[in-house]
Amino acid sequence: MRTIRRVGVFLAAAAALSSACWAAGPAEGEQAPPPRTAAEVLAASAPADWRPLDPQNTLYVELASGRVIIELAPTFAPRHVANIQALAREGYFDGLAIVRSQDDYVVQWGDPDGKRPIRAAHRTVVAEFERTSRGVPFAPLLDPDTYAPETGFADGFPAARDLKLGRAWLTHCYGMVGAGRDNDVDSGGGTELYVVIGQAPRHLDRNVTLVGRVVQGMEQLSTLPRGSGALGFYEKPEQRVPIKSIRIAADVPEAQRTALEELRTDTATFSAFVESRRNRHEEWFKVPAGRVDVCNVPVAVRPRVTAGAK
Amino acid sequence: MRTIRRVGVFLAAAAALSSACWAAGPAEGEQAPPPRTAAEVLAASAPADWRPLDPQNTLYVELASGRVIIELAPTFAPRHVANIQALAREGYFDGLAIVRSQDDYVVQWGDPDGKRPIRAAHRTVVAEFERTSRGVPFAPLLDPDTYAPETGFADGFPAARDLKLGRAWLTHCYGMVGAGRDNDVDSGGGTELYVVIGQAPRHLDRNVTLVGRVVQGMEQLSTLPRGSGALGFYEKPEQRVPIKSIRIAADVPEAQRTALEELRTDTATFSAFVESRRNRHEEWFKVPAGRVDVCNVPVAVRPRVTAGAK
Repeated sequence: MRTIRRVGVFLAAAAALSSACWAAGPAEGEQAPPPRTAAEVLAASAPADWRPLDPQNTLYVELASGRVIIELAPTFAPRHVANIQALAREGYFDGLAIVRSQDDYVVQWGDPDGKRPIRAAHRTVVAEFERTSRGVPFAPLLDPDTYAPETGFADGFPAARDLKLGRAWLTHCYGMVGAGRDNDVDSGGGTELYVVIGQAPRHLDRNVTLVGRVVQGMEQLSTLPRGSGALGFYEKPEQRVPIKSIRIAADVPEAQRTALEELRTDTATFSAFVESRRNRHEEWFKVPAGRVDVCNVPVAVRPRVTAGAK
Repeated sequence: MRTIRRVGVFLAAAAALSSACWAAGPAEGEQAPPPRTAAEVLAASAPADWRPLDPQNTLYVELASGRVIIELAPTFAPRHVANIQALAREGYFDGLAIVRSQDDYVVQWGDPDGKRPIRAAHRTVVAEFERTSRGVPFAPLLDPDTYAPETGFADGFPAARDLKLGRAWLTHCYGMVGAGRDNDVDSGGGTELYVVIGQAPRHLDRNVTLVGRVVQGMEQLSTLPRGSGALGFYEKPEQRVPIKSIRIAADVPEAQRTALEELRTDTATFSAFVESRRNRHEEWFKVPAGRVDVCNVPVAVRPRVTAGAK
């Protein structure tokens, strides 16, 4: 079977000779890492290269098809994250539905009737499109980007920053979760969340608040039938996909939690992982890209390896 | 309902002032186009801005869910396109199946048993990963790109080129169709085709032959259940999605054809369309991106407007 592969040995000589290195590559000045595949990098990783997901900042979206797991990003959207946690705690989302699925763009859920009461939480909070870059842990990519002066990873999230302006923001990559809003910038708050299911809509960066990313179960969203209405909204109520509940992992009995850990993005292992995506060393590849887009480095997540287990 | 919108007025002043214009923008030296939305650009287009799809270079992939339409790219992959046409004409694909669906990557079809005979067509043809840039119609984007020195559009297809090397190639954007191959570069030929259903896997550029793009019916591929096997292959034969037939539009009775036309990419209207994607003038947007990725400009396709109709 002919396949196009993601993982598998690549001739280092080819990388050096390749015309794909069309300009001084990002590895210049960096220590040349050994040529390894992503699978090899992950297999050689140490337990300390991984961090467990924080149950307080993990959301379980329960659908009939199973659980979709979202890691929240309080570093970038503290007000939205707190409000989404409050909404989840008061059961706001339970029984609502996915109301929109637009091909190569987003799925979105919320209250189609706009009648659900809100108790302790807020209907809207002030926009958090970007923040000061001070205090943001940032593992930069040196690769050029179409949309931002600099991209990289902040605590596992794809991000960008502009050090001249002193600003940082999350980037709209596949699987990122944002808070829908009206035309007023401060009209969002997390009552309606969308998830990117196609080519990164980076033009949305700094126009809307990103609150996290899907770390497991993405295919339950990406395969939903597309809506035939404008913007991919489902035209008939029965086409909507019910949400049983959205819970904070910390509020779920431990036995019912999904224990996951994520590759830390502030480690040498992560740098090697990025390099394995930048220049693929699998035998199948002939011309190394020499560069990598921030949205082409999905940060690895795996079932948590418990102490003592091997 | 709060939505994130693709279409809808933007203050020109904001564009000039915005910090998103983090460096000299691509519009520098170009005539400043009037601020228009993509919908406005398309609504104002003239019939001559569109070209009908050539039935000889259009494939109909007939699934139980309906028709998926592919425009072939003989300018870039003449041998593969001729071979795919020969395969279609001898009924090679009929009764085969989609055998793979990998989230955020590709769906792929072919002969899972590798036993289907080939008569007039070839099992493999010589690789066509790139070609000379001479003679390729090219509407360049001036926006920076992570992966190539220059990107743009060639007769409706997203493409890249390196004028120093004198080479041009198609780019792996959402909906692009390629010919799977084994590790040998010349082991492909079109018997197995894949379609990009996620973030543009641009690292595949110049590593595999792209043969065209899906111009209609994409959601029938992108919503297929993901395969649970390695690389997204379906593990059980009954999970495969049967292909009734793949036909060249020219071989289908005219009454059964789907008459489509595509926005020409060598027109002022297309330049305005690109600008409408680069800087969104819908009211919802606050910070214009100022740049656009070649994979964020899906070339518009619509039902053919017949002469005299308005």
